[in-house]
Amino acid sequence: MSSRTNSTIRPLDPRATESYYRQIYDRFRDAIASGVLKPGDRIPSARALTQELGLSRGTIDTAYSLLAAEGYIEARGQAGTVVTPGLKPRAPVAVVPPRARGDTVAPSFRADSILPFQMGLPALDMFPRKIWARLGARHARSMQPADMANPPAFGLPGLRAQIATYLRVSRGIDCSSEQVVVTAGYRHALGLIARALLKEGDRVWLENPGYPPTRDLLGQWGVAGVPVPVDHEGIVVAEGLRLAPTARMAVVTPAHQSPLGVSLSLPRRLALLDWAADAGAWIVEDDYDGEYRYVSRPLPALKSLDGEGRVLYAGTFSKVLFPGIRLGYLVLPEAQVQRFAEVFHTFAGDTPWLTQAIAAAFVAEGHFARHIQKMRRCYAERREATIGGLKDVLGDRLRIDSPPGGMHLILRFEGRWSPEQLVARMREDGLYGEAMADWMVEGEGMPALLVSFTNIASRARAAELGTRLARLL
Amino acid sequence: MSSRTNSTIRPLDPRATESYYRQIYDRFRDAIASGVLKPGDRIPSARALTQELGLSRGTIDTAYSLLAAEGYIEARGQAGTVVTPGLKPRAPVAVVPPRARGDTVAPSFRADSILPFQMGLPALDMFPRKIWARLGARHARSMQPADMANPPAFGLPGLRAQIATYLRVSRGIDCSSEQVVVTAGYRHALGLIARALLKEGDRVWLENPGYPPTRDLLGQWGVAGVPVPVDHEGIVVAEGLRLAPTARMAVVTPAHQSPLGVSLSLPRRLALLDWAADAGAWIVEDDYDGEYRYVSRPLPALKSLDGEGRVLYAGTFSKVLFPGIRLGYLVLPEAQVQRFAEVFHTFAGDTPWLTQAIAAAFVAEGHFARHIQKMRRCYAERREATIGGLKDVLGDRLRIDSPPGGMHLILRFEGRWSPEQLVARMREDGLYGEAMADWMVEGEGMPALLVSFTNIASRARAAELGTRLARLL
Repeated sequence: MSSRTNSTIRPLDPRATESYYRQIYDRFRDAIASGVLKPGDRIPSARALTQELGLSRGTIDTAYSLLAAEGYIEARGQAGTVVTPGLKPRAPVAVVPPRARGDTVAPSFRADSILPFQMGLPALDMFPRKIWARLGARHARSMQPADMANPPAFGLPGLRAQIATYLRVSRGIDCSSEQVVVTAGYRHALGLIARALLKEGDRVWLENPGYPPTRDLLGQWGVAGVPVPVDHEGIVVAEGLRLAPTARMAVVTPAHQSPLGVSLSLPRRLALLDWAADAGAWIVEDDYDGEYRYVSRPLPALKSLDGEGRVLYAGTFSKVLFPGIRLGYLVLPEAQVQRFAEVFHTFAGDTPWLTQAIAAAFVAEGHFARHIQKMRRCYAERREATIGGLKDVLGDRLRIDSPPGGMHLILRFEGRWSPEQLVARMREDGLYGEAMADWMVEGEGMPALLVSFTNIASRARAAELGTRLARLL
Repeated sequence: MSSRTNSTIRPLDPRATESYYRQIYDRFRDAIASGVLKPGDRIPSARALTQELGLSRGTIDTAYSLLAAEGYIEARGQAGTVVTPGLKPRAPVAVVPPRARGDTVAPSFRADSILPFQMGLPALDMFPRKIWARLGARHARSMQPADMANPPAFGLPGLRAQIATYLRVSRGIDCSSEQVVVTAGYRHALGLIARALLKEGDRVWLENPGYPPTRDLLGQWGVAGVPVPVDHEGIVVAEGLRLAPTARMAVVTPAHQSPLGVSLSLPRRLALLDWAADAGAWIVEDDYDGEYRYVSRPLPALKSLDGEGRVLYAGTFSKVLFPGIRLGYLVLPEAQVQRFAEVFHTFAGDTPWLTQAIAAAFVAEGHFARHIQKMRRCYAERREATIGGLKDVLGDRLRIDSPPGGMHLILRFEGRWSPEQLVARMREDGLYGEAMADWMVEGEGMPALLVSFTNIASRARAAELGTRLARLL
């Protein structure tokens, strides 16, 4: 059903206000929408088009990534890249997040497109794809009948054991593999926690500002979020105690607060644990990027101090490996294992055997630890390069907060500017950005722009993006 | 960390009351529990042990499958089979399903072990694992940066298109790929439906008897199940109308009622659709095994008659491919697509890219359709063989219901017998079985035993199992 098409790309216009990648994107999209390119048609390889147009490979890759992310085209490995079979040439259904914030522009918070500054994505170019492919091929070939049945509800024993070992060594968590539950990621884990430990109407401390999906998801479970402010030491526990001493749970990001990047201080950690022990409340530790700290060694997890068994530790492979793997884990207090086993009977065990088997081998063979080491250096460099390149262009107009860890920067500009307007203009220009206001559970917050540095590989590239940003301000 | 161990198997006892596979299982389990075999130790290959003990390969495979399913050992492809690294030698945590039935023996309803008569499993020996491995290796190698971001919330466009095409051709469903949502299986789909269309306290018609996870899962969402009886034409719609005319939803299995195997008659289908249109109610069509019908062509899906957009069609790859893939799909009425997109913002998109990519290629290259054809013939034969073999041994003491399709049989015995007791004894003997009573939403139901025939490959094997069954009666 596929036929090789010649390039449909007319010469690009160097004087156009749109960047090259955008022009390429538009032309393919138009060709598909108008029927010039039909579902199943093969399109030129990125390499061929790079040569044909005399542009950088990165420009073509950006355009193709965007087309793929929006469902227009599909990479088929050796079979090349084709217009998505079955695609109907009309606008895709917009995924509108449910939000209580009225009519502001709602960011998607989903990393399903890849734009410059895209948040929530690791450095995709640095992932050892060849090693991954080798392990993938090996396990696809080794699948046995026993692997084809439903995976155990808590996950493959081998993967749980690898995770427990990693957490003991790297995050200071004293846990056995029986306490480890394999999940499809943080949202899945949070849903399981809500079902096992909360009931409708329960109150939960939420960091303000904080990761928006947490409040959205708990809201869908009928749980009431209590916004608790965050300062330079992390969540202000005393405020939580004042606002809602009888809350059932607190969801926190102790390593690098999301999005402010500050670490939860030791006095606050102890105060939080004391509150939980006294109130019989739960603490969810969302350790989404605890591995990535640049100024010193990673801090031990809050869970490592949890003598009373009140902390549920949620980790994810999305940031260290890649989000498309849909794999995370949850460490339960020993006394809660049986309770979760009951909930899991209807709700969990949905991670495919193959994914778990590849991940277990990746950890067991040492690739995981090596990759984290490599990425820690890479991100430190890219963070410096991004700060440098943006400063080169924007100079004193720009103030950049430099948290000790994490995967994004917080930008503030001198004078009058609207982060929401800037974000909207950035999206039109093919750039990603989020306004701090959209991370507020309550109140306006400071006017600030959040951007990721993970996929910005050089100071020159950062300066180029800074120039585009300056034009939009 | 692994060292090759010599076989720890003493000669087996042919006079023991336990079968050979059970003796092998026990000895490995004991060796692991006592520390003779340590985590990471390599155990003999099934082939080597087959030769050493002079038993059939199937016996060894059964023992190893059981050990793997319970987490004692792990297959590592070319690296052989090892005692699960990190395993602690103590009893695994029992997964106790939450049930309201008091103190009866609760079946697990999860196919995470592989025993003779195991329900919910396709014929694992017939799956084209080599083709699957080839596609898996190809896609693992072809993974691009765009594939590493979060998969689109509704699933990969290519897979959605393949599913829509398959459903149009094979199940008579007129749908576009925009209506298709990729899920992690039936339970995931039902959770999404509950969240999108139901609220706590809503009433839902449930087939009685019916698939237990449906009521368990809806119960966890605070939805009240209304048991509606099933007769030889399927769910008795008139009873539903009498008991709960204002229910918000009905969950049905029209192709082959689960577990009775009857097909929903055309008058009942039309009555059900009329009720839904009049009451503004929803119908969930759980088409878990619509492909497997042996007496005539598969019936078109109920969804194919759905002119008013009231039917949500739930399909799964668990039965046609294998449960470990954790992949299913949902076909939405066109008018509900936007509503689901809102719910999916927090709840879905959790199927890994690799799984979706392999499945899409498997369908696109025709393997899926060929496999279904092959399995239809295979199951017709195995069903006949199983009925024949059981009858050879049990003769007139046994009555077997022969529904027109599906993957299990309903056995009834003459005289006084307790299905619950028989099931408990079967489990002790390493056989799988479920009592009809455990499928009842309300009432006792007829005394009957449910067993699957999908992994019983010959009349001789069925007779052997029948002999064990006779001994337990």
